Amino acid sequence: MAFNKRIKIKALLEDDHLGQSVTVMGWVRTKRSNKNVSFIAINDGSTIKNFQVVADPNQISEDILKKASTGACLKVQGQIVASQGSGQSSELVAQNIEILGEADPDTYPLQPKKHSLEFLREIAHLRIRTNTFGAVFRVRHALAFAVHKYFNDKGFFYIHTPIITASDAEGAGETFKVTTLDLKNPPKTEDGKIDFKADFFERETNLTVSGQLEGELAAMGLGEIYTFGPTFRAENSNTARHLAEFWMIEPEMAFYDAEDNQNLAEEFLKYVISYALENCKDDLDFLDKRAAEEEVSKPADQRNELGLLDRLKFVAENEFQRLTYTEAIEILKNSNQNKKKKFQYLVEKWGVDLQSEHERYLVEKHFKKPVILTDYPKEIKAFYMRQNEDGKTVAAMDILFPGIGEIVGGSQREERLELLVNRMKEMHIPTEEMWWYLDTRRFGATPHAGFGLGFERLVQFVTGMGNIRDVIAFPRTPGHAEF
Amino acid sequence: MAFNKRIKIKALLEDDHLGQSVTVMGWVRTKRSNKNVSFIAINDGSTIKNFQVVADPNQISEDILKKASTGACLKVQGQIVASQGSGQSSELVAQNIEILGEADPDTYPLQPKKHSLEFLREIAHLRIRTNTFGAVFRVRHALAFAVHKYFNDKGFFYIHTPIITASDAEGAGETFKVTTLDLKNPPKTEDGKIDFKADFFERETNLTVSGQLEGELAAMGLGEIYTFGPTFRAENSNTARHLAEFWMIEPEMAFYDAEDNQNLAEEFLKYVISYALENCKDDLDFLDKRAAEEEVSKPADQRNELGLLDRLKFVAENEFQRLTYTEAIEILKNSNQNKKKKFQYLVEKWGVDLQSEHERYLVEKHFKKPVILTDYPKEIKAFYMRQNEDGKTVAAMDILFPGIGEIVGGSQREERLELLVNRMKEMHIPTEEMWWYLDTRRFGATPHAGFGLGFERLVQFVTGMGNIRDVIAFPRTPGHAEF
Repeated sequence: MAFNKRIKIKALLEDDHLGQSVTVMGWVRTKRSNKNVSFIAINDGSTIKNFQVVADPNQISEDILKKASTGACLKVQGQIVASQGSGQSSELVAQNIEILGEADPDTYPLQPKKHSLEFLREIAHLRIRTNTFGAVFRVRHALAFAVHKYFNDKGFFYIHTPIITASDAEGAGETFKVTTLDLKNPPKTEDGKIDFKADFFERETNLTVSGQLEGELAAMGLGEIYTFGPTFRAENSNTARHLAEFWMIEPEMAFYDAEDNQNLAEEFLKYVISYALENCKDDLDFLDKRAAEEEVSKPADQRNELGLLDRLKFVAENEFQRLTYTEAIEILKNSNQNKKKKFQYLVEKWGVDLQSEHERYLVEKHFKKPVILTDYPKEIKAFYMRQNEDGKTVAAMDILFPGIGEIVGGSQREERLELLVNRMKEMHIPTEEMWWYLDTRRFGATPHAGFGLGFERLVQFVTGMGNIRDVIAFPRTPGHAEF
Repeated sequence: MAFNKRIKIKALLEDDHLGQSVTVMGWVRTKRSNKNVSFIAINDGSTIKNFQVVADPNQISEDILKKASTGACLKVQGQIVASQGSGQSSELVAQNIEILGEADPDTYPLQPKKHSLEFLREIAHLRIRTNTFGAVFRVRHALAFAVHKYFNDKGFFYIHTPIITASDAEGAGETFKVTTLDLKNPPKTEDGKIDFKADFFERETNLTVSGQLEGELAAMGLGEIYTFGPTFRAENSNTARHLAEFWMIEPEMAFYDAEDNQNLAEEFLKYVISYALENCKDDLDFLDKRAAEEEVSKPADQRNELGLLDRLKFVAENEFQRLTYTEAIEILKNSNQNKKKKFQYLVEKWGVDLQSEHERYLVEKHFKKPVILTDYPKEIKAFYMRQNEDGKTVAAMDILFPGIGEIVGGSQREERLELLVNRMKEMHIPTEEMWWYLDTRRFGATPHAGFGLGFERLVQFVTGMGNIRDVIAFPRTPGHAEF
């Protein structure tokens, strides 16, 4: 017999249900009682808003009302009436309340008071039940859906690139090994090396750092594709910006050059942010207030000039600033920050990699808007980026966002076989192992481009959460693989 | 300067472009030439259909026409005119052809002839350029998008559950180890064991076999959630039905019982299949013909009674047959197959696990439609399934599809703490390590349910591909991790 005969609170709030008999199920957020009446605010996860249940102690037993404490799960049958109080236009007068599951106030960790984000990270299995994390994960969902909708509507095809891979030629970072060998007693070859022929895949394998190379293969058949999957870095980075496991979106497009790539990335970012603004109003209003409260505790010079919602609208509505690395170096060299030696890393000559402080200066102080930096020195970029005619730079782009820094990295890819092979040799990347990648340049090559977006960085930007561990349900970082 | 000033072939075919000057880019599929004219069929991946380019040797140089061989990539500028021939209503008269990338006929492996699927698997980086695999991956994309759209429209939230996990308590299968330890010389503890405290996560970790348990945590806050991510099995199964790395969809819903779960799964499957029928007409027409040709080579008793499209329509339009395991055992025991000992595993008594041959008998011979089998013996199902009042069975469901067998497995979850803990102890599952999972039963528990769908099995069913390695771009199986 079907149990799920309920109306979601989101639906209750969207339309007029006055006078209707309904069943609502959800978890108690707060309860206020006096001897005449109990007001129970319940939440079912469909929206950040609670719905108020009014319980008359003559109708609902004392035992039930006692058990309806914070965190308990209730099934409430009753009638929707106009609300007496302020804040909400209607409320539910309970005819019957069933306790689906109790939450002992002495042991339930999420009592109605302010908890630190650090504490909530330790109970990540329960933090999803709070206002903040409910909002974050609903926004995360909306952004993920917007990603799929954007690309689907444009005729891109979603490709699932491999997670386990034998290709580590990219040099994008330290990798996790994947094996079924007995670690205590691995089989060895005659010369004492690990015998990977005996491993599951009969070779050394690791977790992918990027789906780009496989994405390129697919784009050479399907035209325009994107990936959206987990990627991994085994770097011992204990920062608020790094995860060992995170989700990446990587579109790859045949027939795109560097400018087409920039146009796509800008349009895409504006689309997904606008989508969140349109579809997550209640959650973003809450997160906007939350961010404003957080600001107060920051040193004055680190505060955002704009509030969260204003930042999102600003990005959605304004053109990104496009300039070359070479132009950016000139701006940085001549900046007061540099002249007064306020940068930790002074910008002295063309060719240096930009630090986070430089990126933030360009975005937050100089241009005061998102920046697309292009045409970096080839020495500081990956082998597959297309070489420009100057012989010094490649057709790379990084997109820099306020507060986040680099949110997108991409490039036109080097489609010319000879130039690509030469660059790989210069960078000591084994061309034999990459025969399949080079085949895309041997057969039916075409100008093509793509970029990668770290999904958690995007969720951070849109939700205003300061620590990347607070925008993924169960974060993986050095020493942490709980839940 | 933006390069991507082209019109996609899909768009060219959808509307009337007669008389327009356009640029088309794509790869040559076939070329027919005589001394007066060349007909070049090009494909850009946007659709399975090629577009015919007509090239006059007085206009296009001999060298260019020679290089426009199968697999070469072209940029063609010209005018759309009414087609002289049959098959297509319009064609492109070339004013200019640029060879973006050649494909030497002596070395390009994909010449226009029939290639075996086995051969194409060895060149998986190129097979995406064939009609069959183009169709498969476009349908795969459409199905993935339909999954997201279905759940989004119903108010479910997409959760990214962890890929790397320390929890292996589920017993769903053999796992891959994930480590950064030096395999040749791993650190050891005083008693000679591997010192996992020195590993990246300071504990033993592996690749997830399912996101279900974490999905349940999220459902207890957000109400209705789903996962769609990679899962892994380190089983040495070299069959046409098994992958070491595959994608799973796992919805988990608070306030759902077993029947709600069945209703959702049936509605969901019908939705995504209908979506493919509506949105992938050309690709499915092609795959339908392809499947019909394959049928001819099968032994008569293994042939499908219905063609691919008819199977899809049948599933989308008919109610699934629901029955209990106990009822199924009676049917199987009394079947002619069983009496005549034609089953490899004879069905003799209640309690045995069903084999693939039994599932297929029920679906393909007895009911001739998808079957939802429910209420299995608890001994053959996982610890988290809700125990029925008979003390013998659990509120499990498996959905069986023709040709595929089990496509969905799910259950109402055991929400009663004491019963769950007892079952875990009976099955030797460590309850201490699972404190976080048990917390969902300690605090605000509610009836809830969920299921898992192997995405590749769904893609197989919809595309009619016989081998699961042919519905994922770069399959991972024992001994295989290429590309």
